[in-house]
Amino acid sequence: MASAEASSIAPTPLLKDELDIVIPTIRNLDFLEMWRPFFQPYHLIIVQDGDPSKVIKVPEGFDYELYNRNDINRILGPKASCISFKDSACRCFGYMVSKKKYIYTIDDDCFVAKDPSGKSINALEQHIKNLLCPSTPHFFNTLYDPYREGADFVRGYPFSLREGAKTAVSHGLWLNIPDYDAPTQLVKPRERNTRYVDMVLTIPKGTLFPMCGMNLAFDRELIGPAMYFGLMGDGQPIGRYDDMWAGWCVKVICDHLGLGVKTGLPYIWHSKASNPFVNLKKEYKGIFWQEEIIPFFQSAVLPKECTSVQQCYLELSKQVKEKLSKVDPYFDKLADAMVTWIDAWDELNAEGASAQLSNGKA
Amino acid sequence: MASAEASSIAPTPLLKDELDIVIPTIRNLDFLEMWRPFFQPYHLIIVQDGDPSKVIKVPEGFDYELYNRNDINRILGPKASCISFKDSACRCFGYMVSKKKYIYTIDDDCFVAKDPSGKSINALEQHIKNLLCPSTPHFFNTLYDPYREGADFVRGYPFSLREGAKTAVSHGLWLNIPDYDAPTQLVKPRERNTRYVDMVLTIPKGTLFPMCGMNLAFDRELIGPAMYFGLMGDGQPIGRYDDMWAGWCVKVICDHLGLGVKTGLPYIWHSKASNPFVNLKKEYKGIFWQEEIIPFFQSAVLPKECTSVQQCYLELSKQVKEKLSKVDPYFDKLADAMVTWIDAWDELNAEGASAQLSNGKA
Repeated sequence: MASAEASSIAPTPLLKDELDIVIPTIRNLDFLEMWRPFFQPYHLIIVQDGDPSKVIKVPEGFDYELYNRNDINRILGPKASCISFKDSACRCFGYMVSKKKYIYTIDDDCFVAKDPSGKSINALEQHIKNLLCPSTPHFFNTLYDPYREGADFVRGYPFSLREGAKTAVSHGLWLNIPDYDAPTQLVKPRERNTRYVDMVLTIPKGTLFPMCGMNLAFDRELIGPAMYFGLMGDGQPIGRYDDMWAGWCVKVICDHLGLGVKTGLPYIWHSKASNPFVNLKKEYKGIFWQEEIIPFFQSAVLPKECTSVQQCYLELSKQVKEKLSKVDPYFDKLADAMVTWIDAWDELNAEGASAQLSNGKA
Repeated sequence: MASAEASSIAPTPLLKDELDIVIPTIRNLDFLEMWRPFFQPYHLIIVQDGDPSKVIKVPEGFDYELYNRNDINRILGPKASCISFKDSACRCFGYMVSKKKYIYTIDDDCFVAKDPSGKSINALEQHIKNLLCPSTPHFFNTLYDPYREGADFVRGYPFSLREGAKTAVSHGLWLNIPDYDAPTQLVKPRERNTRYVDMVLTIPKGTLFPMCGMNLAFDRELIGPAMYFGLMGDGQPIGRYDDMWAGWCVKVICDHLGLGVKTGLPYIWHSKASNPFVNLKKEYKGIFWQEEIIPFFQSAVLPKECTSVQQCYLELSKQVKEKLSKVDPYFDKLADAMVTWIDAWDELNAEGASAQLSNGKA
């Protein structure tokens, strides 16, 4: 039944064998049931963020592998120190162990949204379209995505730039509960995002943005090693900056390498707001720190010699150590973890490294 | 009747005494009739672009002044050389003679559009909202305009940047006929823009965009002297780059002065496509030249000492002369015209300069 439904909605799921869906824990069985028509054709990687003895129940019919903390420790050994514990930031372990070209990651409180006509939105399909179609980071097109049906480049857009750039990241948005920080949640507890903006946009080169990990897709081959979600949660002075950190690093590196980052469609339905008091506790250092982190990333320059994502990322880790350690010793530790992350990534993604992973539960 | 209709739609027209509507010629009587409910409360400045002996008929009830070529020559004397003839670029003369803080400029083939609910869009009102509300050029907000009702800054947006920047320009869009260049018009003669994107966005600092003069509002006090539409039309080797030229200059100067440029809402209904063959003739040099002009503006740096729009603009004219004259001698002439434009602007806008203008027909 379910697969019949899936095939009626997406007769030939795009990139079926080239994309993994990475989910940090699943606390809610409805989540996968709701997404079944869209997700069932794909392989899932679930990274359990808390107590490894808890059992995560995955409904029948899904093809998945599940990693808990014990698996991460076993697979990475001492390098497991770079993966956050008791925090959804651990999801980036899933990016590392995937062998696919594309990743879609989504939170378990994000459900299927409806477009203004009432039709269920196949978020994954839109992300794939975004990733497969070029970006326009070097000049702004006032009709937004020029490659979309019914649109094009407007008068005054240089012809030499119309081929665009490869798209590395597709950042999707959220209807219902917006992705606000704790202070804004506290001030506007009832605010809901009801505005469906029918648009995909390339974030221009040189412009940073707050990348949210709730509904995010990327090309692992183009940018994967920069998608590190940092050190958050258990034992760390900060939380809820995992995706932000990744976003800043990713954008600087995409700009350097001439890759594109898109935001806008697709929407998911973000079902519930997290607790603003808990969030404030996790965030408050970040709220101070980001005032220094943003100018740091805005002015970060990578040398021409850095031509791979790994080289860029290691260079960035050096600059973090040099310039942000004075903000807090945490950044010294984070810079080291960035290096460990790249070591682990390269180890797992080297030729013939897949045997090591075959113990992942499925 | 008409004014009763106007008052029912906009009971207290925003900025009634602080905004002029500038229109380059009116070939179509329906144009003002259609806009009557929205425009009648405002003062119009009509700049006739062609033969001064032709009579432009303005329907009753509108408060307007009209300038033809003879008026421009009389008012500016030898400096009239900086104002284009037989081209809608002459509209910028209207920006110069206005005494108001805000300008809205619109083409006479742009009609009232409807939003998806079928309601007529008061484009002017939306432009005014855009101009009165800050911009966010220094960091991208993924929910777009954070000041709009139902929206805010998202998690990860630095608090120190939430005051935003003053908005200098509001660039509105077009339903129906998109603003395409001649080659795209030729290739896609039937393409229509049917997508209403419910969004206003700040174009980030450092990013250029193709500014279209069809549906454009700006703050004269903040950016007016940079809104020069160049030398187009009669006796010039190029056309249809008037607004583009203004947009590149304006954006570089806004970025330098920390001012914001918005694009998106409001939409107008662009009723008819101009002739693509005529357009190609006007544009073809621009299509080559823009490949060198864009990198020039992308790398243009204004010295710290330039703190007024005039200073910035004169500095830019020097750089144009220095770096673009090698592309074509036209740019040498254009650089001189940029200086003349600033001279004329300052003369007309000096204290006590208004007497000179009182001969404008009304």
